[in-house]
Amino acid sequence: MKAEIITIGDEILIGQIVDTNSAWIGEQFNRSGIEIYQITSVRDDHDHIIEAIKGAEKNVDLVIITGGLGPTKDDITRDALCECFNTKLTFHKPTLDTIIERFSHRGIDMNKLNRDQAMLPENCTVLYNKMGTAPGMWFEQNDTIFVSMPGVPFEMKYLLEFEVLPRLRETGKTKAIFHKTVLTQGIPESMLAERIESWEDALPEHIKLAYLPNPMAVRLRLSAMGENEAALKADVEKEIGSLQEIIPEAIFGYDTETMAEVIGRMLVERGQTLAVAESCTGGYISHLITSVSGSSAYYNGSVTSYSNEIKEKVLGVSPQKLEQFGAVSQEVAIEMVEGVKRVMSADYAIATTGIAGPDGGTEEKPVGTVWIAITGPTKTYAQKFTFVGKHRERNIVRSGQTALQLLRRIVLGEL
Amino acid sequence: MKAEIITIGDEILIGQIVDTNSAWIGEQFNRSGIEIYQITSVRDDHDHIIEAIKGAEKNVDLVIITGGLGPTKDDITRDALCECFNTKLTFHKPTLDTIIERFSHRGIDMNKLNRDQAMLPENCTVLYNKMGTAPGMWFEQNDTIFVSMPGVPFEMKYLLEFEVLPRLRETGKTKAIFHKTVLTQGIPESMLAERIESWEDALPEHIKLAYLPNPMAVRLRLSAMGENEAALKADVEKEIGSLQEIIPEAIFGYDTETMAEVIGRMLVERGQTLAVAESCTGGYISHLITSVSGSSAYYNGSVTSYSNEIKEKVLGVSPQKLEQFGAVSQEVAIEMVEGVKRVMSADYAIATTGIAGPDGGTEEKPVGTVWIAITGPTKTYAQKFTFVGKHRERNIVRSGQTALQLLRRIVLGEL
Repeated sequence: MKAEIITIGDEILIGQIVDTNSAWIGEQFNRSGIEIYQITSVRDDHDHIIEAIKGAEKNVDLVIITGGLGPTKDDITRDALCECFNTKLTFHKPTLDTIIERFSHRGIDMNKLNRDQAMLPENCTVLYNKMGTAPGMWFEQNDTIFVSMPGVPFEMKYLLEFEVLPRLRETGKTKAIFHKTVLTQGIPESMLAERIESWEDALPEHIKLAYLPNPMAVRLRLSAMGENEAALKADVEKEIGSLQEIIPEAIFGYDTETMAEVIGRMLVERGQTLAVAESCTGGYISHLITSVSGSSAYYNGSVTSYSNEIKEKVLGVSPQKLEQFGAVSQEVAIEMVEGVKRVMSADYAIATTGIAGPDGGTEEKPVGTVWIAITGPTKTYAQKFTFVGKHRERNIVRSGQTALQLLRRIVLGEL
Repeated sequence: MKAEIITIGDEILIGQIVDTNSAWIGEQFNRSGIEIYQITSVRDDHDHIIEAIKGAEKNVDLVIITGGLGPTKDDITRDALCECFNTKLTFHKPTLDTIIERFSHRGIDMNKLNRDQAMLPENCTVLYNKMGTAPGMWFEQNDTIFVSMPGVPFEMKYLLEFEVLPRLRETGKTKAIFHKTVLTQGIPESMLAERIESWEDALPEHIKLAYLPNPMAVRLRLSAMGENEAALKADVEKEIGSLQEIIPEAIFGYDTETMAEVIGRMLVERGQTLAVAESCTGGYISHLITSVSGSSAYYNGSVTSYSNEIKEKVLGVSPQKLEQFGAVSQEVAIEMVEGVKRVMSADYAIATTGIAGPDGGTEEKPVGTVWIAITGPTKTYAQKFTFVGKHRERNIVRSGQTALQLLRRIVLGEL
């Protein structure tokens, strides 16, 4: 199956909004075995819309049209659709009922523009839009399928997932898919690729692996394509089981979880608490932890000690150690972590001290040098990291994620 | 002048990357008085590229082509361009020199693919790409201009700004533009619109105002279009001068500055220091401040006091006040801010205490209730805010920005 996406809207052409809809649809179609031939963005213009649709019909067997629907401007698009498919507008009662219900629910008065949204091309299949007032429309002509959807992303996504893709699957020209993303931290992408190379090479034909790195994690997305979703899920889970044996220390979660959520769940289960002392990460770790709803149940608090004086006064780091080893040292990291654990009466604590950059590095301790210490009920652990690059924000993010990953492994007894 | 943008690359069609280039070009063109007729994304396919270019030529007088250039795949695009413009590839020495220089600079060996990048269509004007190895190409045919640029965003942006737009301006079919963005904080968008309504209505014809709100600030972008950039700049600055008299308390900066940078600059100038005590913002304010390079010169540190015990023990908040007024109260905010100023020996301090949500609200103190206190060398100030909505991250961001804005105004002696 070969598709073209047509997006309608002046706001896309003048760069007021970025057309993320097309990329999202492209990704869904790619995973369903539908090839995207072209993406075309056109203005809110009757003749131009018709030209684009007629042009697409020559090349593909599926045309997806988004945008150009809505109370203030859908006349143009609907009229263009009527002209393309040799039909006229007719009143569609279920759509009016939906519009009335939504308006009464929100306590807003309807106007003529809203009511006009229930006038739809006579020969289309109406796709119910649970998320808004403008329905989707499905046309078939000369062996080509045409689908028109509103451009509001969450409405379009709902329609595509629950109305369009199921109908496309019924044509027998698409495939079933299942995908799951493995979240890893602590092994750089190129080293990870080496470690899992033989596992990757042995993946069955119908399972594809994609690396999706970001500063927070290297994510491995497994996508299986075939006939039966339940079988695909089992296949993917089996491969992930094997992967867990190869890189047990690196996997911290799946799909959209964050490391802070995973840690929060572990601490709630154990009835234990956490505190943080931050130097180079400057509050970032505390922000990650407190971004999780319910974190006050296990998080006591933090100290950002940006000056040596605060390290001494609030965390009890000894002036001699600061003098002898410097603030960025194993000794100071350990005194910071034990100090904050004591001051905050916590079961676990994290401490960071390093040089985030872009300035402040020396030959011995270049920008990117970070000591991370973790302490728990039974032991204290410290490790030095040397992140490459002088990008301040990236060094902060990497230090924070690395510290949380070390904490996770200490709590699990892996370190 | 009317333009079509053609983006080339399989990665766009399968949704692996979002086509932000087109939106950016659309925005630049819109501001230069160039109308965008259509955006078309096509695969890395010889025939398809030619079809798209020939199709565009019928409708517009400027065709911008991005992507499809680079050492591994530019053969397809360059061959297609040669076919479109009835020419053949020829060796371009300045391009090879650039490639050689870049490689020797990075200490990497060149291969044949790299060398082949110096083979360019004979009848094009070569646009020097300071940012990479693939140059831009400018063709003219039948009164239409065609420009081909690499798809790497920072290379494309450089070429468009410094090579393409100046040449387009020489055609006399574009306009001069100047734009400046005013950053405001503290007045909601709808109220701001009311307060500046008569100013906005009195703006001269050639200056347009756009509201660009985000959780960090409401940004007002003034764009002036005309013949002479220096005159436009003077016109915009004059209008901003009038705006400053209407909303003096809300404007904190211009263009891409952040509030934390503005505050940092003020504290450096004054040789003063800052400390923070965070409850509901959980480390976010400290993270904003320490994201600024050089912040260790004026930032002493922070305490995130997520439990009452820490408020008492580390910040010296009195148990009686916590008991009597609750943690989210004026009294506790003031004791927190004065406590952290004392503990951290700072000239200024910020404290926040509130309910970020989504849970934890009461009838008296709903989610979004936040007390912010600021203290300085001469006075302590506290104010209650009630942010609408239960979105945790948004409440944290709003509280943080509001606190920094209050601090800025206290330092300036405005509060």
